Amino acid sequence: MKRYDAALIIAASENDANLFYATKFLAPDPFIYLQTSEKRIIFVSDLEFERAKKQAKVDEIISINKYKKNSSKFIEIAEKILKEYRIRNILVPENFRLADYSFLTDKGYKIDFKEEPFFEKRLIKTNEEVEAIKETQKYLEEALDEAIRFLRVCTIKDGFIWYDKKQVTSEDIKRIINLRLVKNNCNAKHTIVSCGNDAVEPHNEGYGALKANEQIIIDIFPQSMNTMYYADMTRTIVKGKAPLKLKNIFETVLKAQQLAISIVKTGVDGKDIETKVREYFEKNNYKTNFNDKKQGFIHNLGHGIGLEIHEYPRVGGSSFKLQEGNVITIEPGLYYEDKGAVRIEDMILVTKNSYINLTKYPKYLEVP
Amino acid sequence: MKRYDAALIIAASENDANLFYATKFLAPDPFIYLQTSEKRIIFVSDLEFERAKKQAKVDEIISINKYKKNSSKFIEIAEKILKEYRIRNILVPENFRLADYSFLTDKGYKIDFKEEPFFEKRLIKTNEEVEAIKETQKYLEEALDEAIRFLRVCTIKDGFIWYDKKQVTSEDIKRIINLRLVKNNCNAKHTIVSCGNDAVEPHNEGYGALKANEQIIIDIFPQSMNTMYYADMTRTIVKGKAPLKLKNIFETVLKAQQLAISIVKTGVDGKDIETKVREYFEKNNYKTNFNDKKQGFIHNLGHGIGLEIHEYPRVGGSSFKLQEGNVITIEPGLYYEDKGAVRIEDMILVTKNSYINLTKYPKYLEVP
Repeated sequence: MKRYDAALIIAASENDANLFYATKFLAPDPFIYLQTSEKRIIFVSDLEFERAKKQAKVDEIISINKYKKNSSKFIEIAEKILKEYRIRNILVPENFRLADYSFLTDKGYKIDFKEEPFFEKRLIKTNEEVEAIKETQKYLEEALDEAIRFLRVCTIKDGFIWYDKKQVTSEDIKRIINLRLVKNNCNAKHTIVSCGNDAVEPHNEGYGALKANEQIIIDIFPQSMNTMYYADMTRTIVKGKAPLKLKNIFETVLKAQQLAISIVKTGVDGKDIETKVREYFEKNNYKTNFNDKKQGFIHNLGHGIGLEIHEYPRVGGSSFKLQEGNVITIEPGLYYEDKGAVRIEDMILVTKNSYINLTKYPKYLEVP
Repeated sequence: MKRYDAALIIAASENDANLFYATKFLAPDPFIYLQTSEKRIIFVSDLEFERAKKQAKVDEIISINKYKKNSSKFIEIAEKILKEYRIRNILVPENFRLADYSFLTDKGYKIDFKEEPFFEKRLIKTNEEVEAIKETQKYLEEALDEAIRFLRVCTIKDGFIWYDKKQVTSEDIKRIINLRLVKNNCNAKHTIVSCGNDAVEPHNEGYGALKANEQIIIDIFPQSMNTMYYADMTRTIVKGKAPLKLKNIFETVLKAQQLAISIVKTGVDGKDIETKVREYFEKNNYKTNFNDKKQGFIHNLGHGIGLEIHEYPRVGGSSFKLQEGNVITIEPGLYYEDKGAVRIEDMILVTKNSYINLTKYPKYLEVP
């Protein structure tokens, strides 16, 4: 903060995790955050003023009302505030809007952006943050458990899964999971319950009738509406009997995950862990091919998680050394059209010399 | 598109309605959209390639794999693509990320932004889009109806609302609403069920025990996970008997809403409609005070709705002429600590000479 008069964020905290992190104030419309060497101030609309006074964790809350005169655009209001506070050299996040940047630089303000992480501390979860993530994870596991218990009482006929004379679909299982999450005030979008060929595409949500004796990848990543913290877990199951090829992939992915998790500690580079997983797959003859048919281990090993489902630190892809207090996922996967697809994902808290696995849910392939 | 070689969007369509609108491809991670005078192309990761081929509505889908070499940042990949396609003069949306802008302009690219609406056509809903909004609205009304039917069987004791010897809370009602929405694959975040003083703050979600004989503002705005289109509706109710002061506010807001809706047609300025509502409130002695105690009609009259909960056209606040095919909300409200708070919100389709109210749910204050 030496070279800059202030850090500035202009966003709706609903869609901007940095702004929510800095203020703990959730708003659907843009407001202004100003962080000088002396204090942290937010400027909110009249509509939000009373609510902000109760909820925002900042040094000062100011209504934008007095800056509003003759300003139809929000950035004009922001500019009046910067002028009044004599702020000329400004640091903003990398996702600062081009239109706002253009408006302010045209008026002579000097603006630099800081690459993510804008707030380094966001990567180092406090006890309170870890507890929030664990709470979301608890509800996530309850939701998966409800789905698994349902699948246990389903029957198999003609290669499909049946409940009460009705074919069970991906949508049915997603509904069970999402309803249980909503009961616990968690919001789940795009829950994945993908079967057969759908499961070979890691981001395919899955649609239609679920098949017995084939892989079903279930990837759940709810956000708590109480704390705004996410959790993320994937399990791969088969209703009935798994083919031998799939069993082998499952065992390989599981061992790769155990290997990866066992290496986690402060100072280790996520990219190096990913490389070890790739090598393990190669050694076991599970090749990755990015060129024509995309198959094998075709995504990164994991990602940081917190107020965003994907946040820093990176885990794989590019280099990034793990730090005490990081919460990351470790989610190796193998995807083959002919042999099958498996992904297994846990959430891991990085400690100084080791790790704590925040995910308790058991790992098994077959659901009888 | 004359002065520019191409329009460019770099975003995750999950969080960028323009990109989803342009491609119909929903992805949680960034991809690249390039629109030249000849065609509309997306560049996606290997992970998304097969899924994009099935889902994206563009002229061409290209894997970014071959551009990936020696590029750790996504914007470096984008730059290689721009170079290959000989694109130098670029038009981007106003929310283009500063970091990407800075990277590309440093390399000599010329970038201008276009203010919202980036795609003017997004404001003019097609029949298909109107049907999608109506479907979400149908589920919204089912959800509210379930909550109202629940409140009808509740009892009143000691000024509170009871069900089966348990005090009924804001959270209980939100849960009923959100669960019903999830059953129909709609996602509802921040549903408002605010009572008493909470209701005086328009964005207060509401917390804790609900009181009988006091205003309860219920504002529901789900997004369909099938179509990604939103709906939005607010009703204000009282469990039991409403005080006379509140009845008067309710009647005034209802009449103001009827007045506002009756004016809607192509060519009318939303700001003028809002002014008429303000005048109607003033005439009926409901003053708006923005200065010390914020009370009265303290928000805009409405907003466009579609792939975003708040999108263009604006309705009030600043000037914006309505066009045939706009879908907007009309939601006057009055908020007083001493007299009570009421908001009533419908969704309106603007037609050439009139309007169609897409909201069917009845408007009444007291729930017995």
